[in-house]
Amino acid sequence: MAPVPSTTSSETFPVFEHRPPSDVDVLIIGAGPAGLMAAACLARYGVHNVRIVDKRATKIFTGQADGLNSRTLEIMQALGIGNQIMSEANEFGEVCFWEPINNGQICRASRLPATIPGISRFRYSALHQGRIERILLDKIAAWSTPSFETELKDSHRQRPITVERAVCPDLITLPSSTASALSDSVKDRIVVRLRHLTEAEAKPAQFSPLASDGLYRSNMFEDDALDAAPKGLPDTEMLEDVRCRYVIGTDGARSWTRGAVGLKLEGETTDYFWGVLDGRLVTDFPDVRMRCCIHSASSGSVLMIPREKDITRLYIQLPQVASGERPNRNDVTPEKLLARANAILAPYTIRIPKIEWYTCYQIGQRLVDQWSWNNRVFLGGDACHTHSPKRGQGMNMSMADTFNLSWKLAQVLRGIANPKILQTYQDERAPLAAELIDLDRKVAHLFSGKPATAGVSDSGISLQEFQKTMEQGARFASGTVVDYPSSELIAKPGSPHQGVKNNPEFAKNLLVGPRLESHQVVCLADAKPYQTGDLAPADGKWKIFIFGGDIAQESTCKENFEKLARFLAENERSPIKKYTPFGQDSDSVIDCITILASARISLEPEQFHDILRPVKGKHGYRSYQKIFTDDETYHHGHGHAYEKYGIDPKAGCVIVVRPDQHVSLVTHIGDHIGLAAFFDEFMLLPKSTSS
Amino acid sequence: MAPVPSTTSSETFPVFEHRPPSDVDVLIIGAGPAGLMAAACLARYGVHNVRIVDKRATKIFTGQADGLNSRTLEIMQALGIGNQIMSEANEFGEVCFWEPINNGQICRASRLPATIPGISRFRYSALHQGRIERILLDKIAAWSTPSFETELKDSHRQRPITVERAVCPDLITLPSSTASALSDSVKDRIVVRLRHLTEAEAKPAQFSPLASDGLYRSNMFEDDALDAAPKGLPDTEMLEDVRCRYVIGTDGARSWTRGAVGLKLEGETTDYFWGVLDGRLVTDFPDVRMRCCIHSASSGSVLMIPREKDITRLYIQLPQVASGERPNRNDVTPEKLLARANAILAPYTIRIPKIEWYTCYQIGQRLVDQWSWNNRVFLGGDACHTHSPKRGQGMNMSMADTFNLSWKLAQVLRGIANPKILQTYQDERAPLAAELIDLDRKVAHLFSGKPATAGVSDSGISLQEFQKTMEQGARFASGTVVDYPSSELIAKPGSPHQGVKNNPEFAKNLLVGPRLESHQVVCLADAKPYQTGDLAPADGKWKIFIFGGDIAQESTCKENFEKLARFLAENERSPIKKYTPFGQDSDSVIDCITILASARISLEPEQFHDILRPVKGKHGYRSYQKIFTDDETYHHGHGHAYEKYGIDPKAGCVIVVRPDQHVSLVTHIGDHIGLAAFFDEFMLLPKSTSS
Repeated sequence: MAPVPSTTSSETFPVFEHRPPSDVDVLIIGAGPAGLMAAACLARYGVHNVRIVDKRATKIFTGQADGLNSRTLEIMQALGIGNQIMSEANEFGEVCFWEPINNGQICRASRLPATIPGISRFRYSALHQGRIERILLDKIAAWSTPSFETELKDSHRQRPITVERAVCPDLITLPSSTASALSDSVKDRIVVRLRHLTEAEAKPAQFSPLASDGLYRSNMFEDDALDAAPKGLPDTEMLEDVRCRYVIGTDGARSWTRGAVGLKLEGETTDYFWGVLDGRLVTDFPDVRMRCCIHSASSGSVLMIPREKDITRLYIQLPQVASGERPNRNDVTPEKLLARANAILAPYTIRIPKIEWYTCYQIGQRLVDQWSWNNRVFLGGDACHTHSPKRGQGMNMSMADTFNLSWKLAQVLRGIANPKILQTYQDERAPLAAELIDLDRKVAHLFSGKPATAGVSDSGISLQEFQKTMEQGARFASGTVVDYPSSELIAKPGSPHQGVKNNPEFAKNLLVGPRLESHQVVCLADAKPYQTGDLAPADGKWKIFIFGGDIAQESTCKENFEKLARFLAENERSPIKKYTPFGQDSDSVIDCITILASARISLEPEQFHDILRPVKGKHGYRSYQKIFTDDETYHHGHGHAYEKYGIDPKAGCVIVVRPDQHVSLVTHIGDHIGLAAFFDEFMLLPKSTSS
Repeated sequence: MAPVPSTTSSETFPVFEHRPPSDVDVLIIGAGPAGLMAAACLARYGVHNVRIVDKRATKIFTGQADGLNSRTLEIMQALGIGNQIMSEANEFGEVCFWEPINNGQICRASRLPATIPGISRFRYSALHQGRIERILLDKIAAWSTPSFETELKDSHRQRPITVERAVCPDLITLPSSTASALSDSVKDRIVVRLRHLTEAEAKPAQFSPLASDGLYRSNMFEDDALDAAPKGLPDTEMLEDVRCRYVIGTDGARSWTRGAVGLKLEGETTDYFWGVLDGRLVTDFPDVRMRCCIHSASSGSVLMIPREKDITRLYIQLPQVASGERPNRNDVTPEKLLARANAILAPYTIRIPKIEWYTCYQIGQRLVDQWSWNNRVFLGGDACHTHSPKRGQGMNMSMADTFNLSWKLAQVLRGIANPKILQTYQDERAPLAAELIDLDRKVAHLFSGKPATAGVSDSGISLQEFQKTMEQGARFASGTVVDYPSSELIAKPGSPHQGVKNNPEFAKNLLVGPRLESHQVVCLADAKPYQTGDLAPADGKWKIFIFGGDIAQESTCKENFEKLARFLAENERSPIKKYTPFGQDSDSVIDCITILASARISLEPEQFHDILRPVKGKHGYRSYQKIFTDDETYHHGHGHAYEKYGIDPKAGCVIVVRPDQHVSLVTHIGDHIGLAAFFDEFMLLPKSTSS
């Protein structure tokens, strides 16, 4: 296939220097939340020959996206950074709805919990994008830094992955479409030419203040970030070719990658414009630490988001412009935005002594036509979907995109899984993005439409209609109900797997497709409570949760349980035996977690098969957090996990959970063949090694 | 008073250089946990002209003390570092008692929760001293780094406080005993001559391997730390005089400071010797992640402590030596200690592929005769009390000592409190240390005594006796029941305060003397749950908790509550009005927290007096976390704080809480005079400033 010329071909620039070409497993273009999540996950899952580039010279320091939904916080927790994120973020307590009353004033019409109770351990919170990027950047470095032991084993290890800033992709050359990413032939690689900007080029000027996607950003406060002098930029412009097995384009709404592989963002923009102001408020409005939806009778709406450090974000509806027109740029100053907010909030008043950030955006909903080029070049985040930012969904969806993609890519690159699983990325994420965009269109209309004044007219948006849509949306927005469709990775009832029969009746309250809901169990080795969510961390491994039932009192349970352990340890069809590379710990590809329904003190660790509490590494250290019971704890009550999952303690079951915590399979504890067949569908036998 | 010569007078060394003398508010000698806690608290409370020196060239990296009791974790939480400590520490789940059985083997005889349920939000945990010191060091630097705004106001600010290592005190010159620490005259200062060691001097050699206090430490693993090359040490030895308002000697069991001011450690040693081994175990013993007390029939006892990163610490009883003798040093190798542990644990076996640290110690209990020299030179930590380390009390007691001292010292140095309050340091801590040492003597005997074999003899220690003492001790060891005696800072019933009448009947379940127990309340401004413990952080301020009752439904409550607010805001006897320096925020010395018994949604923030939700700083930002109700939350149930404190919602009360969270006073909400009189007893009128 011929090279696809980029829109910013290097021909127009004088070229001074060429670096020698290099080879990578994955090149990530764009270091926003989606790109950083991809890099962090790949590093964590052991894929270290990765580069990540961004055309901006510095990271974001303030403002921009800030909402973290329950599922994003679960993902952060799974990555081991939940505590840090939550200690910095501001959790939302309540949503208050303010509506116009007859005298032209507004009143608090109703209250709702900001997170639906019971939907997750984690509740909807806010933390600005800059902090989230900082935390991910630190983890990318940490997870790609070779530890002493790894270094010895793996001498061709790279240096820690860092974001290469002020680096633009310039030209992409795609191989013939049937080429294998895993081929070692250079001609099968995707070649991306990178242009390293000089200090003179890496300037704010490259960011168009009025971009074609309807988003424009104030330079006034981004100057902060952009003025922070970029370091180590070359004196002369440099070009280099990077030969990639895979490319991830997370380069935003105006994605270069998307255009380079011939894909398109389709959709529409509206004539609704909104301004955004961040700062600490001086006000007599009582609910600045709540999330508020405030509709005025005639001045438009304000959405209020309480953020970290007592900052509040205001989304302020701007006066509607004529179809196809834009607000006058001179009308979008912080002062004018604030005056508009005061008009909406009257008779309450707001001052913001120090505005932290502001911007203005046009509401529009657009969706990409395809999420990848031949499952070799993937798009993620804003490159795939753009919508209004008010519901804080952008950053969540974007990070969830690459969280979905990266474990699959890691398993393919490590030779564990067949590359065909990569097709599930689009199959799983595209319907979700479409749903998000539909919902966003609905909500944007409700927010920007003129509200009904009580008892006056029904031409506007009634509070009931508004709240109903908000409530419907809240469940979706939490991210915890995401349900992936049937595929080789999700064995729903009626799935196409050979020999795999999903048996949802063994865990009546647990759905195949969504993420595993977390419940408390107690550890046999240390008598402490653990959350099942934490027993399935995002460590790149598959998890088999063995709910063995009450093995202390039910002899059938004991028998079935011991049979399964022996099958997993000894049988030639055992996925653990088949797919664990020679010389690696038995839990390095598939990790078994045992949860029993017996009293904790009726069990002894020594009675369990070694496959269930494996020995790690050469010293023979035992794993202690592998065997649990559904029992009382000293300080945290009883988790009732069997009851909550709907598992019969006299029968038990086996649940397969993906590396991203989504449930793949529920089956009978004696269904060894079905369990084996599930993994056989997509796993690859390890190449024999001579270690 | 004549200079007191130190035992290591500089006369024996050639002196090459003298630095010019300097003046400090506080010099801290010794940078172990007690000294670092003192420095951290002083920095946090706004006392920044502080120096802290340590004769060791580097910090501790591993081993040593590791137990963190509930109260220490509460203190860490109050200092804002609870999350960090707890995310690194290992919480203990259960204590297992193993006893000999007739066939010469051991069996698990009983189990207990490692922390008494309900005693605290935080549970007994372990983290090695090196990590705790690291976290405190980071905070000392952070809290003493001037922020931008502070810097403008306070131009004579120091640089961040850092530990000056390889610096020994050399000579102390005490002023006439009646001199005021607050005098600006140089002759009223305590002059400490410091000797800055050269690189050649700052060597492990300075640590005697067999010290007179009965503790000796292996160099083998401390080499780790000591080899980490100390940086920035002078080429030639330097002397300097530091003129101090106050000195804190936290320089350990062999305290130089203690000797320099003529105080003595009194007590006894026993002939019980124990070894300590840290490492990850390879073993078939089932309870290595529990705390275990293991008594063998004839080989002695082992105490097992599960630590962070799957490390387990073993305390191993050594064969008893003849009275007054010591074990042969050649018998105290890691190999021999491990062999001894295996003998005790038989038939279970233990291997430790990599020993992280080891040591050996002699059990002894000693107590200082006085805790200060004229309330100018204070001792804290091991300089005051030494005992056996097995119960993890040493580091907890030591940090609690200086946590007690430092807020008082800060208030005196800031001119808020009369220096007479410093006497309460000894009055509060000395009885506690005596109690600890009594308990330790008892437990050490039980641990080291020969146990009874079931049904064989009663000359030994029975399991019942052992467990009973352990249970009695557990409450004390949690640190949460510490009850300080009556003083001007603790208005117990029958206390000597002028006009202050403690009325415990208004909060029946809340004791005056111990720390405020933490319960959940819900914040009016953000609808989120808060712990009362977190509303009284260690920020150096006094707290008035106003339990206003149900002001929405009880008109008397409403009236009393509003009267109190007006009294605090306007009356000339109001402690807030009297003792807050001119120009400072109204909550800068005394912070009011309001907790009401009304339904949250029956209240509006705007109905509260400004004194209860003060405006901060020049911009006029409001404080939002000041007003709470005892009501249901969306995700964490109902705190029932009124019921748990025993406060009648129809009456309410006022509770005064010290900067260290101990309860000073409970009185009627209408007792304005008593409230004022309490503060008048020890607070000082601010010097009038012209800002």
